[in-house]
Amino acid sequence: MTKVIKGGTVVTADRQFTADILIEGEKIAQIGENLTGDEVIDATGAYVIPGGIDPHTHLEMPFMGTTAAETFESGTFAAAAGGTTMLVDFCLPGEDGSLLNAIDDWDRKSKDQICCDISYHMAITGWNETIFDEMEAVVKERGINTFKHFMAYKGALMVEDDEMFASFKRCAELGALPLVHAENGDIVAELQQKYLAEGITGPEGHAYSRPPEVEGEAANRAIMIADAAGTPLYIVHVSCEQAHEAIRRARQKGMRVYGEPLIQHLTLDEGEYFNKDWQYAARRVMSPPFRSKDHQASLWAGLAAGSLQVVATDHAAFTDEQKRMGLDNFTTIPNGTGGLEERMAMLWTTGVETGRLTPEEFVAVTSTNIAKILNIYPLKGGITVGGDADVVVWDPKLSRTVHQSTQKSIIDYNVFEGMEVTASPRYTLSRGDVIWAHGQNSQPQPGRGKFVRRAPFASASKALSKWKSLNSPRKIERNPLNIPSGV
Amino acid sequence: MTKVIKGGTVVTADRQFTADILIEGEKIAQIGENLTGDEVIDATGAYVIPGGIDPHTHLEMPFMGTTAAETFESGTFAAAAGGTTMLVDFCLPGEDGSLLNAIDDWDRKSKDQICCDISYHMAITGWNETIFDEMEAVVKERGINTFKHFMAYKGALMVEDDEMFASFKRCAELGALPLVHAENGDIVAELQQKYLAEGITGPEGHAYSRPPEVEGEAANRAIMIADAAGTPLYIVHVSCEQAHEAIRRARQKGMRVYGEPLIQHLTLDEGEYFNKDWQYAARRVMSPPFRSKDHQASLWAGLAAGSLQVVATDHAAFTDEQKRMGLDNFTTIPNGTGGLEERMAMLWTTGVETGRLTPEEFVAVTSTNIAKILNIYPLKGGITVGGDADVVVWDPKLSRTVHQSTQKSIIDYNVFEGMEVTASPRYTLSRGDVIWAHGQNSQPQPGRGKFVRRAPFASASKALSKWKSLNSPRKIERNPLNIPSGV
Amino acid sequence: MTKVIKGGTVVTADRQFTADILIEGEKIAQIGENLTGDEVIDATGAYVIPGGIDPHTHLEMPFMGTTAAETFESGTFAAAAGGTTMLVDFCLPGEDGSLLNAIDDWDRKSKDQICCDISYHMAITGWNETIFDEMEAVVKERGINTFKHFMAYKGALMVEDDEMFASFKRCAELGALPLVHAENGDIVAELQQKYLAEGITGPEGHAYSRPPEVEGEAANRAIMIADAAGTPLYIVHVSCEQAHEAIRRARQKGMRVYGEPLIQHLTLDEGEYFNKDWQYAARRVMSPPFRSKDHQASLWAGLAAGSLQVVATDHAAFTDEQKRMGLDNFTTIPNGTGGLEERMAMLWTTGVETGRLTPEEFVAVTSTNIAKILNIYPLKGGITVGGDADVVVWDPKLSRTVHQSTQKSIIDYNVFEGMEVTASPRYTLSRGDVIWAHGQNSQPQPGRGKFVRRAPFASASKALSKWKSLNSPRKIERNPLNIPSGV
Amino acid sequence: MTKVIKGGTVVTADRQFTADILIEGEKIAQIGENLTGDEVIDATGAYVIPGGIDPHTHLEMPFMGTTAAETFESGTFAAAAGGTTMLVDFCLPGEDGSLLNAIDDWDRKSKDQICCDISYHMAITGWNETIFDEMEAVVKERGINTFKHFMAYKGALMVEDDEMFASFKRCAELGALPLVHAENGDIVAELQQKYLAEGITGPEGHAYSRPPEVEGEAANRAIMIADAAGTPLYIVHVSCEQAHEAIRRARQKGMRVYGEPLIQHLTLDEGEYFNKDWQYAARRVMSPPFRSKDHQASLWAGLAAGSLQVVATDHAAFTDEQKRMGLDNFTTIPNGTGGLEERMAMLWTTGVETGRLTPEEFVAVTSTNIAKILNIYPLKGGITVGGDADVVVWDPKLSRTVHQSTQKSIIDYNVFEGMEVTASPRYTLSRGDVIWAHGQNSQPQPGRGKFVRRAPFASASKALSKWKSLNSPRKIERNPLNIPSGV
Ligand SMILES: [Zn+2]
Ligand SMILES: [Zn+2]
Ligand SMILES: [Zn+2]
Ligand SMILES: [Zn+2]
Ligand SMILES: [Zn+2]
Ligand SMILES: [Zn+2]
Ligand SMILES: [Zn+2]
Ligand SMILES: [Zn+2]
Repeated sequence: MTKVIKGGTVVTADRQFTADILIEGEKIAQIGENLTGDEVIDATGAYVIPGGIDPHTHLEMPFMGTTAAETFESGTFAAAAGGTTMLVDFCLPGEDGSLLNAIDDWDRKSKDQICCDISYHMAITGWNETIFDEMEAVVKERGINTFKHFMAYKGALMVEDDEMFASFKRCAELGALPLVHAENGDIVAELQQKYLAEGITGPEGHAYSRPPEVEGEAANRAIMIADAAGTPLYIVHVSCEQAHEAIRRARQKGMRVYGEPLIQHLTLDEGEYFNKDWQYAARRVMSPPFRSKDHQASLWAGLAAGSLQVVATDHAAFTDEQKRMGLDNFTTIPNGTGGLEERMAMLWTTGVETGRLTPEEFVAVTSTNIAKILNIYPLKGGITVGGDADVVVWDPKLSRTVHQSTQKSIIDYNVFEGMEVTASPRYTLSRGDVIWAHGQNSQPQPGRGKFVRRAPFASASKALSKWKSLNSPRKIERNPLNIPSGV
Repeated sequence: MTKVIKGGTVVTADRQFTADILIEGEKIAQIGENLTGDEVIDATGAYVIPGGIDPHTHLEMPFMGTTAAETFESGTFAAAAGGTTMLVDFCLPGEDGSLLNAIDDWDRKSKDQICCDISYHMAITGWNETIFDEMEAVVKERGINTFKHFMAYKGALMVEDDEMFASFKRCAELGALPLVHAENGDIVAELQQKYLAEGITGPEGHAYSRPPEVEGEAANRAIMIADAAGTPLYIVHVSCEQAHEAIRRARQKGMRVYGEPLIQHLTLDEGEYFNKDWQYAARRVMSPPFRSKDHQASLWAGLAAGSLQVVATDHAAFTDEQKRMGLDNFTTIPNGTGGLEERMAMLWTTGVETGRLTPEEFVAVTSTNIAKILNIYPLKGGITVGGDADVVVWDPKLSRTVHQSTQKSIIDYNVFEGMEVTASPRYTLSRGDVIWAHGQNSQPQPGRGKFVRRAPFASASKALSKWKSLNSPRKIERNPLNIPSGV
Repeated sequence: MTKVIKGGTVVTADRQFTADILIEGEKIAQIGENLTGDEVIDATGAYVIPGGIDPHTHLEMPFMGTTAAETFESGTFAAAAGGTTMLVDFCLPGEDGSLLNAIDDWDRKSKDQICCDISYHMAITGWNETIFDEMEAVVKERGINTFKHFMAYKGALMVEDDEMFASFKRCAELGALPLVHAENGDIVAELQQKYLAEGITGPEGHAYSRPPEVEGEAANRAIMIADAAGTPLYIVHVSCEQAHEAIRRARQKGMRVYGEPLIQHLTLDEGEYFNKDWQYAARRVMSPPFRSKDHQASLWAGLAAGSLQVVATDHAAFTDEQKRMGLDNFTTIPNGTGGLEERMAMLWTTGVETGRLTPEEFVAVTSTNIAKILNIYPLKGGITVGGDADVVVWDPKLSRTVHQSTQKSIIDYNVFEGMEVTASPRYTLSRGDVIWAHGQNSQPQPGRGKFVRRAPFASASKALSKWKSLNSPRKIERNPLNIPSGV
Repeated sequence: MTKVIKGGTVVTADRQFTADILIEGEKIAQIGENLTGDEVIDATGAYVIPGGIDPHTHLEMPFMGTTAAETFESGTFAAAAGGTTMLVDFCLPGEDGSLLNAIDDWDRKSKDQICCDISYHMAITGWNETIFDEMEAVVKERGINTFKHFMAYKGALMVEDDEMFASFKRCAELGALPLVHAENGDIVAELQQKYLAEGITGPEGHAYSRPPEVEGEAANRAIMIADAAGTPLYIVHVSCEQAHEAIRRARQKGMRVYGEPLIQHLTLDEGEYFNKDWQYAARRVMSPPFRSKDHQASLWAGLAAGSLQVVATDHAAFTDEQKRMGLDNFTTIPNGTGGLEERMAMLWTTGVETGRLTPEEFVAVTSTNIAKILNIYPLKGGITVGGDADVVVWDPKLSRTVHQSTQKSIIDYNVFEGMEVTASPRYTLSRGDVIWAHGQNSQPQPGRGKFVRRAPFASASKALSKWKSLNSPRKIERNPLNIPSGV
């Protein structure tokens, strides 16, 4: 049975054009005018875009003494409802420290639940020979080409500079891409103690103890280490001008560094933490925290200029009750907010509708760019014959107000509560299946999603390796006569 | 009759993949595996890329008291031989000042000569109501969506700030894109007089009188004017860090500014002007002049980072004899060098082979990006079903040494003389015709080229207009009681 | 008769120390402990600082069809009351264009009125041989080593780039320092017409038509021209990050550029122009206009970092009635505000009391730095034996509220109305005379002030000339055999 | 007995003027014209400047398994011969870790040897409660207001970020100034292993393993930590644009950060390590290593612009034999070069004689600025009545060629060997004693030097504390009703 998406305007990262899209099975079979198929999906008056890819989620993540409430089922269904057809979750090693076991564990949690496709980033939270060895299997056998490094969460996930260097070098060898959470964990820990000691125990202390300079420093450090190790680098949740400046400075030297702002940081500001209602503020606790409005302007400009490439969510949803673990102490409020369902609509509304981004740039930063970075383009991230039919019929007239009561996420609030979005998915297709149809009472289809394998050695990785190898320092050959005979 | 390009690796700005390409008539009909056609073009071991687009040429241009020696025939054939299938020439108003007459004039010169497709940028070299009016016809009737402004060549082509502002504002209204040659013509003229007065009459004086700061200043000024007028801006022949810095600074504020380095500035340096052989140095006289090597590094990084988007040539070829018009005075040496034939091979060799650029980035900066900027993508600039079959079979093993004796350009030297390039076109196709086949004694086919019409209101232009209109200053409404009653 | 200032803490640009100061006649005779003199000036609990120097005033200036209301008498008395003992006024050529006649004219206006010492900057508002010639006399005979250039006020004071270059080069020869008012006059004029055309006639239009980018552009351009001409440069009324950035960028290349923020721009913001009361807003109309708060932060940091050196006022006071000349059209509101009396106290309150500046830096930016730049240090600008006894007993406990009713300025409002300042002069001495004593009913002493002559070739000017001469481009010597024999 | 320095031109950081200087005992008693004294020191045709202060030496330092060869006697005499009258040596804790014992130890080594005045910076090479406690005594009892932190030398002197933060915070409380050696020790160690593993064992490996990015990263990190801890920061041996850029960026935010380039980095470049003679290259091994010439340009511009404040030497002299400890492995070559004797003459020659610096700036960066930073101005660092008579008669005609054979340093080479300097001290006076007289066979006078105590809470430190305290984050007060009742 074939499907044809008819009457829409296709928007890719490259261009806009009028065309129908014919889907055969899981794949896009044809793009053109006047196509026919067994089933017609009406795109009249709408855009037809690649399904969103959110490369930064934490579903059911064990963290800070609890587990993120969003499940793989609820999370992937929320994604679908918002126009996102693939997400990349962070896989954390368990107590045994094994990367491969962790992947097994994540597979076990996810495979019967997921409603759309997923992949994993593997976290490196320590360093030893086993990890060195397992990394190869992670890449070659498990199809994971990204490794995440936490520069914060001291005493838990955090790694030291020499560990990062070793892991980054290993990534370079394997053609994998290192990712970093960039905040100086030492200084965060010190500032947390300082503010607690001053009696600041509320959520505002979370923001105070993670200032932009602390993020900018870590971003800058990770970039230097990646450069020394000879690998591209991807910096997650870039929230501030300081980190963005470090990225721009690196790129201007020819370094290959990518930056990922979150939809939250683009649209919400630090004033949220000063709310007089504790629960309101605690719901917004995430790391890095929201920043002042001038940081938002920096991030927006970066998306248009190309110095930042991807908009993600860092979706890590904790319930009100979970948040209350930190009632007396902001450092024990589980870090994380939602956004999977709202990312696309919020970005369209505040980005495209204001002229900050073109529709093409919207597609690039929500889907295509990350697909290229993850080396899965155009299987994912494009509207391409032969690619997966992960397609969204994006209706720019389907406005709505964000409400917790109507969201798909299972937590009891929404950080975008009450905001108007001007566009929404009319249909979301995942590998040819309609997994979300607006107004048609769509239901989760757990287990239909698949794990997406990703090959190493993306093009930028190969180019950088070539450059590094041509420009590595050379030994000075000295005549033994010019070397003294020793002490 | 159909053609199929078989056995190659397709490289676009997006990705690399193995596929055959079926051409029907002038168009790409199919991209896929195991395609068949009436004629097979062998791409085994080669890349298949979009034909190069050189957006900056001056063929048969009347300038500085003479006329550029390269003809539309020799220039477009040299282009083809180098893998370039489209060029955009600068159309200069004649003595009557009419834009439309100038286009007619350019059409007359070009149409029976061109071997591949061309388009024009229209030059604005003064300002009055007729020009204001004609601009609309240029855009709507003649299909030209770009207007060039010279900030240098005082007393000749140069326009003043208020004229630029007026023209830029007009561009904004018409959805056209302004281009600038950015050098401060006043200061260039002063420095020319200064160095001549000091007895510096040789070609080195050309470099001395056009230092990087003078270019950076003008770039910065043009950017401000474009921002005030509410239009994107394209800066031609960005040769130095100073201009590049101005562009980066603007982009980081969300301004939509594009920068075009030339292949010459990426690979040749100011030392050329210090050559003891006058003719050698004079051949290299162009504006802006070649710069020191640190400027080259800045330009290369810009191409990788995306702060610069296009590599062009500013091909304006004058013979040795023409160059000798300035024997006693460098200010009368006709400005210009060649490069149309060497651009692609030189960029591949010094960019891709060194790892500074990925193959995808090579395609982007030689073809795709400018096609998008000029709003003709994917008719041109891509490998897309339905697009023009402007395709190059790019052989990364076809190395050669650049020699004047074997070049297609009709001038008597080559600024890249003696350099080794590691790749060359095996075949160049223009709208389905093979116009260059390596080793097969290809000949020019004058008159087969066509003029490419370009529509206004590219996506970036629309987004910027939206942003400007939403953010334009608002009148403060004052109660008449709060306004005094007058003097 | 001698005076001794006893019991205070001396603060210079260098340090703080406890000492008495003995004054004999007009000069400081001794600095030390336990000094005695005929008359004792009590500095107990107070600082003793060099008298302020305001290098930017327009007293009785003919401008925009009227004449600034502040007279040399009222202005210099207001200065004294605020702790300023010297000001430098801008001398504008009259209709005959003669610089020397303008100085005579300014002398005539000032000499019987001034209560403290003054000097002039000479304005260059056009270019011809007479001006070239007169500049030498201005420097050598009249003791004026600074020349002002307006890049704005098109059709009136504005000069073009080639005129600036010529004048700057002349400054370099004479060892004089060029000053610029940096705004792109062409674009200001265009934006004024644009906003008027949109019906924005009120004072907010003044701010809209002079955005920061327009100032930054002009600053950047002036810097390039000064560099090409081989002279240091001083940029007056730096109001925004854009101009400040251009200055920092230049200084980081070793260029010798100075920047002068005004106390108004450090403390007042653009919101003033949005006031619903027309007269309130019109009183604040000056060029450049007040900016947003982030620009203020940039200026403050520049003062601490040393990238900006001087705090001035651009005191140009027009009455409410004069301001009403622009009731229907903001472009005809006379540009200017007061500040002479408040500069020191406002800067202390918002700078030193907040920790943004040290007391030493306060002295540097209000007095010492400009004295060095103007090459009159330590005759003025220091607490030095042999220097003029221009000294202020600065009482950090003498707080007050700024009110028009108690000001010395003769205009009918005060842009700092209602603000609390925490410090004020207890005594102001000019060349040994007490010209202001707090609470003692001091009266103006017109005619006691003197004109201060300033020698050319300050130390920075000499160093730059040496550098430029050692690094000027050199002719390439070519063997005649390597030069072709001509066309 | 009094001395008078007659006939010279006094140069201070502020100005130049003709004056004689009368010295009574250890102090400057009078500055003026036509002074007389018991003894006349002829300064005809010479400048009279404050004695140089070198704030960065390592005399007799135990390091890398050996002890720096330069003694307090030879070092302070070399200093005197070069025009330097005070140096600040780094005091390192011994095995017991006690700061106070280390000072006793340093006193023991220095006090009978020193020919001019000295002071110490105290090194913090670990962190515990004893160190926390001892820091107070170091400041209050021992008169040391600076603490040095090594971010490199992993496994030896290096401290971690949390230790730095703790120490910096302690500095803030005590009004002391933290210093850092900024290189990322983790990455240096990794790169050392990498290059050794590649067979690069010679001195070039030293340069390769400490690239500019590694220094810039550490500088950037130290700045962030200082900002978080609320203290100014001083970065020693700033050798590259990367570190300088971090400093400028910080200063532009109002942070109080100082940078100290070394005379070696200003004048020598990385090519030294590529010398075919092993011993030649090994003699130049120091950390950070010499850089390429573009870094030199950055440092020079910083000195003129004020973004860098001090020129030092990091004098740590090891003999040829000591250097040979690293014959087979560059990581065991003792790090350090000389420069104490040549600093002033080299800086004058390459700075003042080229116009890069004014004479006043020369004095500022060799003496006055560091005296202010160390809070000992104008006891040291100026020509001031009441200040110590540390004065140099600086003869701008006394040119010479640097030779090991004529140097005062006791090591067997000189990194400036063969360079021409155009100026030298005619006389060097330390607290009124002539300790060096050119051509008069001056001899060391060990034991006459004194330790200089330095008080905490310099002016910048106080201002920053005020700013930080006014701008520290505030607790959000929440109504208990708005705080949930717990988990
Ligand atoms: Zn994170
Ligand atoms: Zn995360
Ligand atoms: Zn041009
Ligand atoms: Zn051109
Ligand atoms: Zn002005
Ligand atoms: Zn003014
Ligand atoms: Zn060190
Ligand atoms: Zn050291």
